[in-house]
Amino acid sequence: MRIGALGELGVIRLIEAMQGPLPPGAIGIGDDAAFWPAPPGALGWLISQDMLVESQHFRWDWATPEEVGWKAAQVNLSDIAAMGGEPFAVLTSLAIPAHGTVEQVRGLYSGLTRALSAHGVPIIGGDTVGGSDRLVLDVTILGKPSPCGPVRRQGARVGDRLVVSGWLGSSYAGYLLLSEGVRTASATPSEQYLLEAHLMPQARLSLGRMVAEHVSAMTDISDGLAREIFAMLLPGQGADIHLDQLPIRPEVRVLAERHGADAAVWAVWGGEDYELLMAVPPEALPVISQEARRLQVPLTEVGAVTGSGEVRWMSRGRAVRIEGDGVKFEHF
Amino acid sequence: MRIGALGELGVIRLIEAMQGPLPPGAIGIGDDAAFWPAPPGALGWLISQDMLVESQHFRWDWATPEEVGWKAAQVNLSDIAAMGGEPFAVLTSLAIPAHGTVEQVRGLYSGLTRALSAHGVPIIGGDTVGGSDRLVLDVTILGKPSPCGPVRRQGARVGDRLVVSGWLGSSYAGYLLLSEGVRTASATPSEQYLLEAHLMPQARLSLGRMVAEHVSAMTDISDGLAREIFAMLLPGQGADIHLDQLPIRPEVRVLAERHGADAAVWAVWGGEDYELLMAVPPEALPVISQEARRLQVPLTEVGAVTGSGEVRWMSRGRAVRIEGDGVKFEHF
Repeated sequence: MRIGALGELGVIRLIEAMQGPLPPGAIGIGDDAAFWPAPPGALGWLISQDMLVESQHFRWDWATPEEVGWKAAQVNLSDIAAMGGEPFAVLTSLAIPAHGTVEQVRGLYSGLTRALSAHGVPIIGGDTVGGSDRLVLDVTILGKPSPCGPVRRQGARVGDRLVVSGWLGSSYAGYLLLSEGVRTASATPSEQYLLEAHLMPQARLSLGRMVAEHVSAMTDISDGLAREIFAMLLPGQGADIHLDQLPIRPEVRVLAERHGADAAVWAVWGGEDYELLMAVPPEALPVISQEARRLQVPLTEVGAVTGSGEVRWMSRGRAVRIEGDGVKFEHF
Repeated sequence: MRIGALGELGVIRLIEAMQGPLPPGAIGIGDDAAFWPAPPGALGWLISQDMLVESQHFRWDWATPEEVGWKAAQVNLSDIAAMGGEPFAVLTSLAIPAHGTVEQVRGLYSGLTRALSAHGVPIIGGDTVGGSDRLVLDVTILGKPSPCGPVRRQGARVGDRLVVSGWLGSSYAGYLLLSEGVRTASATPSEQYLLEAHLMPQARLSLGRMVAEHVSAMTDISDGLAREIFAMLLPGQGADIHLDQLPIRPEVRVLAERHGADAAVWAVWGGEDYELLMAVPPEALPVISQEARRLQVPLTEVGAVTGSGEVRWMSRGRAVRIEGDGVKFEHF
């Protein structure tokens, strides 16, 4: 049976079923990062691993090697941010095709280390191999949880407010521009913002750490808001999301209009925004807003967790359907 | 500049130069595993990562998915063994090509978990992606060092005896048989031993842990004895290796003779034996031999560390040349 027939979730389920028993307190497959507990008195470690494949996750005619390395680092940093943690080291495995160049490898690692060194994170090991047709970069990141422990993706309570950082849909808009042939050198300022949102995301590490003790659940929005909300909810839980409140930049709205598309669809299904989605108890909203202001990160309340068992997308007071056809990204 | 012009070592040097400053006590790129120190009172963690690429590191017409998964696990377990450590968790990243099948993924993970669960090691995370032309499996392993700390690859002293576990050249002999079309189902018992040596290695975890406090340096013999000895020696150090004492199985000698080849060349340059090479102070030889006997692992003294600055290959009392042309494996 071809792997495509199983789908991404099917493969994850298959692997998950074989992960083996974990010790008490450990977090295995299914969260932004895994967590391995330490002996009493110590904090334990967060570990996450993300693989990028040439042509699938990046294209050499769309991004410089520095940009690819930068984004690979941010994608991993974002997983640690989503657990409320602090990254401390990285390992990289690189499969280099025969047509790969020294400049690509140098650029990749230049981008990686520029992104990582801003957080004091060194590359401490990994592997380098040949034999692949496309360049494959696999990054493993290690981090410390916050003193209150790792923040899980699930654990929201009914009544919690759903809050997102930054802007949604910008990365997808940048991706569309790239696929239309727009490049940074010849882009307008608006277009440059969108290209940068796709090529040069910034993991929300400071924010994640600051809010860790106040939120009841958190995840990053790498797979789009809709998928991340579904992944956050426990059985029986639901959510009301107010589409009119989604933080969407004017540049995204203008481009969506030009495409005859709904900017909200891009914001909900687009993915790769690497922002944080948090479930916040109402009484914690003021302190979280204050932390975000101090860090100059926009924070938007987009909805709330309900006990309805379903996700309702609200617009102008009515529940509406919002389909991601053509926008959703399937890994197989 | 094509990456091949730089060579494997050149790429590693390039990446090493960018790894960034490490905290005191940390071990970065260049040993069997990296090591990150813990706060005082705790032990810190060993981390290693190995990437396997279809057609380059394994072939579907040579090995079952279970065998590929098993070997991927052993390769990583061996890195922890070489540091004298104890593995506790694994993460896996898998790039699956469009022609990949559910049976391959299931078999891979079945082999991985069978090898890992024998040591109580669960898979706690990772990534699964599509878009590659060949299957790529990247395994990250986490381990605890021995109570006396991680055992380094370098640190041997002049006069230390060089001791290897198990047998050398068997994996290369198995590789040759596979390349000649020999398969397990139709193999003679001798051939089956050699195929198994290549396809189903066993990391020397118990041995590595037992000898950790007695050796002055240790590494696994994944890249062949010659390369590992060069990597073990400090500037100014040398080694005398007695080719007549190399532990080579009769099955390997018979096959080498049939090929008009020198079995010692296979043992010295073949690689992938996943045995341990240790530098042992003479006074520690008895206790190490005793531990190995208890574990029923053959141990052979093959030479000693000298201050000569060169590696001398000795045969019948004379220094000889031993070239690996056609046997050495280059990654690019």
